[in-house]
Amino acid sequence: MLSKKINLKEKYSKFKKHWSPRIIAEMNDYQFKLAKIKGEFVWHDHKDTDETFIVIQGQMVLKFRDGEIKLSEGEMCVVPKGVEHKPCAEKECKILVVEPRGVVNTGDAGGSLTINEDMWI
Amino acid sequence: MLSKKINLKEKYSKFKKHWSPRIIAEMNDYQFKLAKIKGEFVWHDHKDTDETFIVIQGQMVLKFRDGEIKLSEGEMCVVPKGVEHKPCAEKECKILVVEPRGVVNTGDAGGSLTINEDMWI
Repeated sequence: MLSKKINLKEKYSKFKKHWSPRIIAEMNDYQFKLAKIKGEFVWHDHKDTDETFIVIQGQMVLKFRDGEIKLSEGEMCVVPKGVEHKPCAEKECKILVVEPRGVVNTGDAGGSLTINEDMWI
Repeated sequence: MLSKKINLKEKYSKFKKHWSPRIIAEMNDYQFKLAKIKGEFVWHDHKDTDETFIVIQGQMVLKFRDGEIKLSEGEMCVVPKGVEHKPCAEKECKILVVEPRGVVNTGDAGGSLTINEDMWI
């Protein structure tokens, strides 16, 4: 068969590093990425694409320049392209990110949290 | 703010009909759709696009011509374009479907389960 089952819990067991998204699937030119996040990320935007955050376990806060959105398990949010945001999580939070192939996690902001390589699990 | 929180459980409470996907979000030209499924859908494919199924609650079976994949809560599967598939669920199952805007649920197969309109909740 060309399709396969992807179990999120099993995939999360394969990595521990925070702010280090791992690709689990591709749909056309879009990717599904798992991430474990804790603490504060950097302010950044993605000039050319929207970005989707879905919380799988825990709680996160998406900070925007004009407010913030708290997301818990079973909640999601689409950040429009060009909108500055800063993902944060007080305790470790497991998220599923959906975005086009090739999107860099920190946008143009750069810094030590930037991941430029595709890491599949 | 341009973004908003989307709570899947709250969105599921807004409709009951099986095999009747409801749009909850758009990311670029892709849509996130919730569906409640029960029983057997029709065999169909999507000639131009992959399609992603994520199980939010319950269990479903994706039947293919050469096998089947059982998906439970927290599991997902990307069906490649052009691959015939038949979603089934013995008991009601809640799923999240991700695919480009404009995809018809039954592909070219037609029939009474075809939904041609965008239904937002």
